[in-house]
Amino acid sequence: MPLNHTDSNVSGELDTSIYHLVDRLFPICRSITGNGVRKTLAVIKEYIPVEIHEVPSGTQVFDWKVPREWNIRDAYIKDSSGKRILDFRENNLHVVSYSVPVHRKLPLQELKTHLHTLPEHPDWVPYRTSYYNEDWGFCLSQNQLSSMRDGEYEVMIDASLEDGHLSYGEFVLPGETEEEILLTTHICHPSLANDNLSGIAVLTHLARYLQRVQRRHTYRFLFIPGTIGSITWLALNEQKRSGIKCGLVVACVGDGGGPTYKCSRHGDAPVDLAARHVLQHCGGEPRVLDFSPYGYDERQFCSPGINLPMGLFERSKYGEFPEYHTSADNLDFVTPEHLLESFHMIRQILEILERNRRYVNRYPMCEPQLGKRGLYDAIGGDKDRARRQMALLWVLNQSDGSHSLLDIAERADLPFEMIDHAASLLEDKGLVELCPDSLPD
Amino acid sequence: MPLNHTDSNVSGELDTSIYHLVDRLFPICRSITGNGVRKTLAVIKEYIPVEIHEVPSGTQVFDWKVPREWNIRDAYIKDSSGKRILDFRENNLHVVSYSVPVHRKLPLQELKTHLHTLPEHPDWVPYRTSYYNEDWGFCLSQNQLSSMRDGEYEVMIDASLEDGHLSYGEFVLPGETEEEILLTTHICHPSLANDNLSGIAVLTHLARYLQRVQRRHTYRFLFIPGTIGSITWLALNEQKRSGIKCGLVVACVGDGGGPTYKCSRHGDAPVDLAARHVLQHCGGEPRVLDFSPYGYDERQFCSPGINLPMGLFERSKYGEFPEYHTSADNLDFVTPEHLLESFHMIRQILEILERNRRYVNRYPMCEPQLGKRGLYDAIGGDKDRARRQMALLWVLNQSDGSHSLLDIAERADLPFEMIDHAASLLEDKGLVELCPDSLPD
Amino acid sequence: MPLNHTDSNVSGELDTSIYHLVDRLFPICRSITGNGVRKTLAVIKEYIPVEIHEVPSGTQVFDWKVPREWNIRDAYIKDSSGKRILDFRENNLHVVSYSVPVHRKLPLQELKTHLHTLPEHPDWVPYRTSYYNEDWGFCLSQNQLSSMRDGEYEVMIDASLEDGHLSYGEFVLPGETEEEILLTTHICHPSLANDNLSGIAVLTHLARYLQRVQRRHTYRFLFIPGTIGSITWLALNEQKRSGIKCGLVVACVGDGGGPTYKCSRHGDAPVDLAARHVLQHCGGEPRVLDFSPYGYDERQFCSPGINLPMGLFERSKYGEFPEYHTSADNLDFVTPEHLLESFHMIRQILEILERNRRYVNRYPMCEPQLGKRGLYDAIGGDKDRARRQMALLWVLNQSDGSHSLLDIAERADLPFEMIDHAASLLEDKGLVELCPDSLPD
Repeated sequence: MPLNHTDSNVSGELDTSIYHLVDRLFPICRSITGNGVRKTLAVIKEYIPVEIHEVPSGTQVFDWKVPREWNIRDAYIKDSSGKRILDFRENNLHVVSYSVPVHRKLPLQELKTHLHTLPEHPDWVPYRTSYYNEDWGFCLSQNQLSSMRDGEYEVMIDASLEDGHLSYGEFVLPGETEEEILLTTHICHPSLANDNLSGIAVLTHLARYLQRVQRRHTYRFLFIPGTIGSITWLALNEQKRSGIKCGLVVACVGDGGGPTYKCSRHGDAPVDLAARHVLQHCGGEPRVLDFSPYGYDERQFCSPGINLPMGLFERSKYGEFPEYHTSADNLDFVTPEHLLESFHMIRQILEILERNRRYVNRYPMCEPQLGKRGLYDAIGGDKDRARRQMALLWVLNQSDGSHSLLDIAERADLPFEMIDHAASLLEDKGLVELCPDSLPD
Repeated sequence: MPLNHTDSNVSGELDTSIYHLVDRLFPICRSITGNGVRKTLAVIKEYIPVEIHEVPSGTQVFDWKVPREWNIRDAYIKDSSGKRILDFRENNLHVVSYSVPVHRKLPLQELKTHLHTLPEHPDWVPYRTSYYNEDWGFCLSQNQLSSMRDGEYEVMIDASLEDGHLSYGEFVLPGETEEEILLTTHICHPSLANDNLSGIAVLTHLARYLQRVQRRHTYRFLFIPGTIGSITWLALNEQKRSGIKCGLVVACVGDGGGPTYKCSRHGDAPVDLAARHVLQHCGGEPRVLDFSPYGYDERQFCSPGINLPMGLFERSKYGEFPEYHTSADNLDFVTPEHLLESFHMIRQILEILERNRRYVNRYPMCEPQLGKRGLYDAIGGDKDRARRQMALLWVLNQSDGSHSLLDIAERADLPFEMIDHAASLLEDKGLVELCPDSLPD
Repeated sequence: MPLNHTDSNVSGELDTSIYHLVDRLFPICRSITGNGVRKTLAVIKEYIPVEIHEVPSGTQVFDWKVPREWNIRDAYIKDSSGKRILDFRENNLHVVSYSVPVHRKLPLQELKTHLHTLPEHPDWVPYRTSYYNEDWGFCLSQNQLSSMRDGEYEVMIDASLEDGHLSYGEFVLPGETEEEILLTTHICHPSLANDNLSGIAVLTHLARYLQRVQRRHTYRFLFIPGTIGSITWLALNEQKRSGIKCGLVVACVGDGGGPTYKCSRHGDAPVDLAARHVLQHCGGEPRVLDFSPYGYDERQFCSPGINLPMGLFERSKYGEFPEYHTSADNLDFVTPEHLLESFHMIRQILEILERNRRYVNRYPMCEPQLGKRGLYDAIGGDKDRARRQMALLWVLNQSDGSHSLLDIAERADLPFEMIDHAASLLEDKGLVELCPDSLPD
């Protein structure tokens, strides 16, 4: 049997283990290149046999070049008494990512042009980067800044920006067919929990789960630095692109918002229809957004020359929760429950892609007699009995070879899982049969 | 002239005669087979020359078999003193339809497993059936049940369940073409007025009315037991099925709710468009529902192998009014006024099917001068003058051969009747002419 | 460069000059024929070299005949003392347009059958016509009527209704292509400012503006009497009709309502899409109405045999503002500001028709690097920076040769002008190139 959505053991072991992975990865200082990315991929490798690729700096990838590798060892600001008043070792958000090395003394007035705060959240430290503009800077809370008196300060960033490599992880799970579903997430943010350790942890556990079930599709997982990582992979893997049917970019899946699904550039690709359906029946405050060319790596996957049907799955939309890109996106902001919910919603989307199929009613002249075949008993007597009976009638009525189970679920306004179950019951009783050309759709 | 919608004599004689037929049929104990159905058809035959068919028990009809015939003569529950405390002769709802014969004594505790009540309406008696599951039972009010003391009771059902026939009525009114409109209603319910003596009475009088007017279409009326009746007719009349253009299942048309129209499986068949239009302009609280595979005989007519464009016309939707399938669905629940309104709404739907047609404007270059042809005078000076003038302009503007009068009425947001009238005026003045291929559409 | 929408000098000189033209034309007594029309065309000719056509009375134009020419010199009602109590020289609305000559004495009772008032606005004088029905009449305020005592009155209308001509003005501005945009307005109303001196003044100044800019399209302006004027032009200019791509009827553009756009009979012609877009982004209380066959000359242009994609541009919809067709539609009712706004909205519609085009992204594989080309600097740092950046991304993402800039603007929900500007920036940097077949669309 394909994806087993009733395996309660799965949830059992997952209850805390997704969050646990977030917790393990939180302290590492990641950027778009460097040892923080390698450490992260090494942790993922403890869970799944991810293959780690290293692409040399300077490699041309479409309109871009793989940048030099950035590594940081230490950084601080000392006051005139020599006391570290800001310390990279306490919080890696304190240094603007990709800062060039610096070590000098300068008055507060001049230093301020290199300092970033969030006046509207005076306790929080912002997250800033300067990948493609050589500069240096520090991030701190507004309260920290307010307590700094005029005078001379010593700033030190012990970092290197040198030719090296861009690192990313790739993991392929072959299925019954070569048709691929691509699942990607970015791994370039430092100590930020929702954006995007949540995405890394959910996809890692989803890969573990998919390892254990029958798969119609092949699944490819990419753990890549944002923007330059997806551009690099797309530029260097033209062959592999052609096998991809659709997929998801996964990010910000540890908070309690949404869920939010942003459609692919196609707008009605199988993954769009499946995600829309799952969101419609998931409770919460689901939002399905039209495609737009801003966001995470779907920007690249959905560029006009690539045009892969890749949607974006999130809980709260990036940029719309106040904790976004601040020190408040921490281990308290994400919870085991929300990570698990996100896991299951993505699993349900994949399950529709796996299990959607078309049937033909073998008794299409009027209704077949369900009672004499025990089907009224088979649907049970619980509060869902009426809906389960409707599911049987809908599958019989619409199974003329042209409607998929997802089409039927949409028209019946019933969850896919219920229609899927009804179809399986009817198939067992010989009332419907699978269309020969129905798999995969 | 076809269907005459301004014949006020028609309404005159109908004011009470539809209700009168409901009243006459009310006492008869009907089921899906048996003498109650025959008596009902005999009464209908007093109004229209309906042909009565008898199909033997055991006849295979698609996945079903025509059941044995059920007839009941008497039934009661007597208390220990020998007093009839529940009597079939007082209300035929007291016996579960298709109950097998029984005559025995048993204690209240055991008897209760055969008793059905409606605790939420303690004065009402429910209506129950057991067609395909051999059993027996009684229906009574919750108050009656509450007054029964412990002790022994005598139950007697003098019924027979034996090989016999399934009876149904069929009446065909030939028209100018062989294209058929099918009108059906179920005749299997005992003393229930809205469900469905209302349907029987309205269709009987509609047949009488159609007898007297010019008809573009052939009309076929079926008076059949629910489910097994439509399955039987469809199985045994394959040839006739192919001539059917569209039609209506009519039920629950005597109360003041709705009107409610449930679309055919096609969703946009001529009957769907016509009914939707009539409901839009009828006042009341109209509801147009998408097709779903649960309900009355449209379940069978709209099964995937039959797929006839048959909609369901009701006032209140079955199952949504509290009186549904209870003794409160009685002669007080339906009124002459509501029956007459339903008659006219169905008549208007048929009138659109009869009269919808396409014209070509013979003066398509700019507007023709209406004043010099007396058309501004022809539309009268009443409060509808402005709308009647718009109807003229819309027919002229849209009559390029591709838009039907119903299309125009929809675009103009005017009643079909007004557009129809404008088209006739313009045709009289030679400004538009009928498209040669326009009848029937 | 085509239409220059940032030429602030244009607005500068226009601030009052559109209103000034309304003011100049206000005193003239116009009708569908006659010297008032000629005087009006002569004033327009001071602004643009409009060609004046004269079509003889009696000329057959489709189903109509050019009517006799009407001219009026004087008219009055005198009371028994010989005092002019109603004087055409004070307000040309006092005489029903196309009144036949009359000079007689009659009692008030009989006179009243020739008098028109507006009881609901007792100070206002209504505007009435009797073009195709030989009659005479006076219009006056309800207050004036109330002050008239019983007795004999002398009525005099010194008018002539004789064979002559129907006059209209036509002005063609050739463009780079022969594809024409038609702009028309009616010139048949007497001293009414919004309906339609506003239309005449805005179109005259629009013609002056278009004279000075590069034009992809040829522009044809018609200044014509309502209904009979457009019928006449269409009947006598069959050749010219075929070159028209789309256009606008312009009326009632001097008040502060709307704007209101009524779609052409096509509903989705280029002018409909462009107008819909401009209204969506213009502020105010825009209304886009479906086509209907009642209104101004779009009735004729959109008749089924002509079927030109002509929309109607107004501010308040005719007939929906209380001042419509009354003496309150005067020089106080229209303002320089509203006339100028209308000018600019129509200009923006034309600008979309001029500048809409399709591009192909020359770097379609992932996003090109915008920073290294200075594009992030080019979009400025003002409050629109984020939207301008989105405009760049949308143009890059959607420029696959199948989406026009207007399509992109609609999908991005950004003003056309912003998308247009982004496309030009990207073209300058060599990132996109024009589709060879993209002009004109």
